Amino acid sequence: MVLERYFENRREIINRALDRYLPPDDTYPQKIHKAMRYSIFAGGKRLRPIFMIATYEMLLNRRDKRSIQKILPVACAIEMLHTASLIHDDLPFIDNAGERRGKPSCHKKFGNAIAILTGDALITQSFETVLKLRNHKKALSCLEILLNASSTRGMIGGQVVDIISSQKRVKLHVLRDIHLKKTGALLKASEQLACVMANANEQITNALADFALNIGLAYQVIDDILDEVGADELLYKESGEDHRNEKVTYPVLLGIEESKKQALKLIHDASNIIKYMPNNDVLMEILETIRDRIP
Amino acid sequence: MVLERYFENRREIINRALDRYLPPDDTYPQKIHKAMRYSIFAGGKRLRPIFMIATYEMLLNRRDKRSIQKILPVACAIEMLHTASLIHDDLPFIDNAGERRGKPSCHKKFGNAIAILTGDALITQSFETVLKLRNHKKALSCLEILLNASSTRGMIGGQVVDIISSQKRVKLHVLRDIHLKKTGALLKASEQLACVMANANEQITNALADFALNIGLAYQVIDDILDEVGADELLYKESGEDHRNEKVTYPVLLGIEESKKQALKLIHDASNIIKYMPNNDVLMEILETIRDRIP
Repeated sequence: MVLERYFENRREIINRALDRYLPPDDTYPQKIHKAMRYSIFAGGKRLRPIFMIATYEMLLNRRDKRSIQKILPVACAIEMLHTASLIHDDLPFIDNAGERRGKPSCHKKFGNAIAILTGDALITQSFETVLKLRNHKKALSCLEILLNASSTRGMIGGQVVDIISSQKRVKLHVLRDIHLKKTGALLKASEQLACVMANANEQITNALADFALNIGLAYQVIDDILDEVGADELLYKESGEDHRNEKVTYPVLLGIEESKKQALKLIHDASNIIKYMPNNDVLMEILETIRDRIP
Repeated sequence: MVLERYFENRREIINRALDRYLPPDDTYPQKIHKAMRYSIFAGGKRLRPIFMIATYEMLLNRRDKRSIQKILPVACAIEMLHTASLIHDDLPFIDNAGERRGKPSCHKKFGNAIAILTGDALITQSFETVLKLRNHKKALSCLEILLNASSTRGMIGGQVVDIISSQKRVKLHVLRDIHLKKTGALLKASEQLACVMANANEQITNALADFALNIGLAYQVIDDILDEVGADELLYKESGEDHRNEKVTYPVLLGIEESKKQALKLIHDASNIIKYMPNNDVLMEILETIRDRIP
């Protein structure tokens, strides 16, 4: 990957900013601050903030560390919101995931009660971080975008439909809706936030929002395919995976080959949206990285 | 109570506004919207929004239904945040309360997964409701106050300390801190929000914030006493609960008589703060209502 150094560098900047914006873990009550930091620094790829920063840099046609300083509160706010949703999704009542990125998930490490409150705390910390923006009008626009993305019309709504659909033979349009809300909503928000911060016009904002939804859906379809392929290899699974296997996925509904076709089409459509935008190299590279995951 | 009609009327206005600001329960995904409405309309006394409205009316020296219209988004936001915290606190992992105001609690009615997401949804809905304010500067100030009150420095922090202190012989200053954060923080926010909306100066804002903290602490000390003496009808929950949960309370640490003295002193201090403010009759009446709960 040509831009590996770029991604690594942006990830480092985001990690340092997250460290600044989170309460120190030696402040009272230490336990929740430790739990917030544990989950934030558990090895996340920072996909959403990098996506936002890359778009911002494309729109401004500038790629230096200084120019992204002022959007860091917003970039970190997205990551906090994303992490909060993972913590709550991993709980025994919801996805019951004991591990996350090879480490014990928040509730395994700190207990269920603290995990619930850690999710809550990261939600409020996310919005507090946005308030660090000096430009009040932009702070309000960013909050509106983040609140919309995480509402019952977005991320939370997607999770709800996912829960009530489990063990049901849902149709493709419902599955598509779950993916678009659970994953697409926050990616779309990342693009909208970059546009607000870069003063992009409505046309570009709408185009990049569509671009993000295509990417989000492609990403999930590929995840479904990888899960299916992995499941075929490991036919005798450990208990607890049964629950997951009862989930309807793209390959279950369409078969693996047709799912791959759909993923490729989504990436193709996304690529068409940004094809004629200047300085689109990083976003194009992100698209390629996603395409390369298709087995 | 002289002002019974006033309270009832304000409660009605708040309930109608909550109905307007919550997503209709026939919109998709219906389940979460039904759950949000179930918990919001489960018979809450609307103490925090009424407290805010009463303070706003005191500061403006106006008491008509029209003048409070523009603060309703903020008043409802407080109630949503309060309800969200109750839903999460009632979960089996935290307080394990199957009932709330004589009805099944949210997780008993909708399941644990939906209850977690309903709390999350009410948190984001709360902040979205604040954004309905037309004055952008005030919207930001109100958000800052609500985020601070619900953060790990406030409500969430209080809940964390409560959890890690359970079944421990905590000292009085820790118990006081839990009460001040779990109950005091949002009451203090109610006063600060009223002050922002009424353009009160810093001195009055600080005085009313102290007033609220005194009230919050008094309220909790009285709750502790009522729990100890078994006054179910005044408690809005089953008495003896704290005992069964092996919770340290004011009566456990100080005895019932000394706890009563402390509650009276807190109410006395609160009354001293607002004694010379004009139009303080409703707030004084609220103080009396709280004092009358002492058995």
